[in-house]
Amino acid sequence: MAKLRVGIAGLGTVGAGVVKLFAGGHARLCDKLDLVAVSARDRTRSRGVDLSAYRWVDDPVALAADPSIDIFVELMGGAEGTAKAAVETALSRGAHVVTANKALLALHGARLAQLSEKHGGKLLFEAAVGGGVPMVKALKEAVAGCRAHAVTGILNGTCNYILTEMEASGRSFADVLAEAQRLGYAEADPTTDVGGFDAAHKLTILSAIAFGTLPDYDHVRIEGIERVSRTDIQMAGKLGYRIKLIAKGALTEQGVEMHVRPALLALDHPLANVNGSLNALVVDAEPAGQLTFIGRGAGEGPTAASVASDLIELAEGRAGYPFARPLAQLASPPRATPAERGRYYVRLMVIDRPGVVAAISDRLAHEQISIESFLQMPAGEEPAVPIVLTTQACARAPVEAALKAIQALDVTTEAPYLMPVEQPAVRFGR
Amino acid sequence: MAKLRVGIAGLGTVGAGVVKLFAGGHARLCDKLDLVAVSARDRTRSRGVDLSAYRWVDDPVALAADPSIDIFVELMGGAEGTAKAAVETALSRGAHVVTANKALLALHGARLAQLSEKHGGKLLFEAAVGGGVPMVKALKEAVAGCRAHAVTGILNGTCNYILTEMEASGRSFADVLAEAQRLGYAEADPTTDVGGFDAAHKLTILSAIAFGTLPDYDHVRIEGIERVSRTDIQMAGKLGYRIKLIAKGALTEQGVEMHVRPALLALDHPLANVNGSLNALVVDAEPAGQLTFIGRGAGEGPTAASVASDLIELAEGRAGYPFARPLAQLASPPRATPAERGRYYVRLMVIDRPGVVAAISDRLAHEQISIESFLQMPAGEEPAVPIVLTTQACARAPVEAALKAIQALDVTTEAPYLMPVEQPAVRFGR
Repeated sequence: MAKLRVGIAGLGTVGAGVVKLFAGGHARLCDKLDLVAVSARDRTRSRGVDLSAYRWVDDPVALAADPSIDIFVELMGGAEGTAKAAVETALSRGAHVVTANKALLALHGARLAQLSEKHGGKLLFEAAVGGGVPMVKALKEAVAGCRAHAVTGILNGTCNYILTEMEASGRSFADVLAEAQRLGYAEADPTTDVGGFDAAHKLTILSAIAFGTLPDYDHVRIEGIERVSRTDIQMAGKLGYRIKLIAKGALTEQGVEMHVRPALLALDHPLANVNGSLNALVVDAEPAGQLTFIGRGAGEGPTAASVASDLIELAEGRAGYPFARPLAQLASPPRATPAERGRYYVRLMVIDRPGVVAAISDRLAHEQISIESFLQMPAGEEPAVPIVLTTQACARAPVEAALKAIQALDVTTEAPYLMPVEQPAVRFGR
Repeated sequence: MAKLRVGIAGLGTVGAGVVKLFAGGHARLCDKLDLVAVSARDRTRSRGVDLSAYRWVDDPVALAADPSIDIFVELMGGAEGTAKAAVETALSRGAHVVTANKALLALHGARLAQLSEKHGGKLLFEAAVGGGVPMVKALKEAVAGCRAHAVTGILNGTCNYILTEMEASGRSFADVLAEAQRLGYAEADPTTDVGGFDAAHKLTILSAIAFGTLPDYDHVRIEGIERVSRTDIQMAGKLGYRIKLIAKGALTEQGVEMHVRPALLALDHPLANVNGSLNALVVDAEPAGQLTFIGRGAGEGPTAASVASDLIELAEGRAGYPFARPLAQLASPPRATPAERGRYYVRLMVIDRPGVVAAISDRLAHEQISIESFLQMPAGEEPAVPIVLTTQACARAPVEAALKAIQALDVTTEAPYLMPVEQPAVRFGR
């Protein structure tokens, strides 16, 4: 059988990593696939790998359209513009596409799946989610015999690195972010990562596969980590929790619910010890139970390995539908409003004067909210001191009502900060 | 397309679980597959599911030979006898086989793969390893773009349950085993589990796939958990470790090394918090890095889900080679003798009299072994007291030589017990 001919558009870290795998002669890759052409913005940039054996194409869309390319690998990124045009071009002529572009899939996944089904080219995207962790394949194939009812993940390595560093070093969000930017771990404009949008793109893809639904990015409720402070991390630690940016999708009788937000995890939660730039996914599925997948969520090696696993899947003729099922079978379930019942963490910055705690307690009691733990930091040089509390299980609405009432007291110096305490881990054992 | 017709031989917990998935109408299963016939030893036994819709076949080999069956599901178990005859019969006529039989695959995997390749029937066995955790698919597909150099797992739920219970309750191995037998978590003859043989079967399969080698069960060095005592668990805990039965395969320049044995894990090791009947696998692969997979390792639901995922893979035409590569490409690398350099845990039961500790220290010093930590339990009513120590990094041979010399001192009441301290976890972060 003739080898499948591969063209790569985008030679950043991941693209260069894939070229290196071909150059290194990995057997399962090179036995059935030939890298023949590459495309990137800047031909002169050094990428740590010899590109002279591959045809250079200036225009990625032209590469996608080239009938001599069997598999178009899109590693440029961006939900619109060239990346979208190139992927659509390749799929429209029946070529296979491998991409790491989560934004593109989250926003245009259904349309791309349609092109794939119509023209026969496969569309694979293991590298779009979880770096080297095979989250997409796990959901598409391994959990195929199950009904998934929840996916809960740490899907953004930059946020997880920042939160881990804040805890380890006691430094502020702004400090650690600035350092991460200097080291190249965070973008100059970090909004996509720290604002939770990147995790939301990935969650959209995972939820669609897990629940058999159309990708529905607009339905993800998104909150970033910008307001997580040193105080929050220290206080959470004292209370036995760790703060993580959690991306969660759940299929309930009311429909699908998706959110990305910082939350407090008890230390025995399967995601609590997923630190640094690691990514992880917990899948709750019947009858398999709870499955956890952990590994490196970004970087040249892990992401290139995921691209390679997709290429091998194509070469070995094992690729199925983009979202595991034919598009016609993907549902559009109601967008559920979550029950939002649980325990909550609240941080208040209050002016330190007599009667303040009593007044706050009174407003909480008025909404029938029971306090589980309460910590007041010693007053320092600042005019305001943090008060931190966790509630017993309750609905979110009365907590928000109480916080509004507390703000009206005119004793706080900034808006209260509210985070949910993630449900405790399922207890294992037989 | 006509549905694939499935026949199941073996209706224990897992078999009944698979029947329930068909009876429950799981879409991806039932759209393309029909369960048509079943076979088991006892037709009259109640299995909690209605079998009247399926043809009953007394002889599993006859079911395997039946040309109206497209997929033969073998859930009887046993490396020889009927299970082997039935699987060979099915494969020899070109039928697909799905099995959970790890002993059969560990001992006869190459022969069965040969039958599969020769006659065209696929052979899948996700349920043979890790219960509901997709370890086989992870290695065959997701890590396809990598070179794996080590697989390290907790692969036997019974052992992990016993060790977890010993730690939680402070009871002895014999006590917890007896309870596990009463509860049905351990077999009447527990040797296959507690002796490490079941884990070795599974390790054989995983190593073959991970390293692209022929299954080589005879090369696994196997040690069970029978000698792990309450003292060991308590002392390991005091030193910051947890004892686990570790199954590990490694590909080095010298060849493949495989062992199953109890070991001490630092609490931040990715496997240290895998408790109860959970199973887990850590794959070290380049360039993906370290990947961890955790989930329920046994039981009706998880194992049935894995069987179902194999059936769906067959129905969707995605099944590849049994061990990921054609048989002719599987290597027979040298059987490596491990370097066995690391830190060791030693428990000595000694007669409590002056000079004993000095004599022991002397024998260790004679072999140039540096002690890292040393704990002596207070003397109780027993004539012997435990002394526990960990060494600094050293080769295993001098430790064994020192222990021999210590035994010759005639101050010990039983043979010294030696366990390795597992290498620390890879440090994550960027």
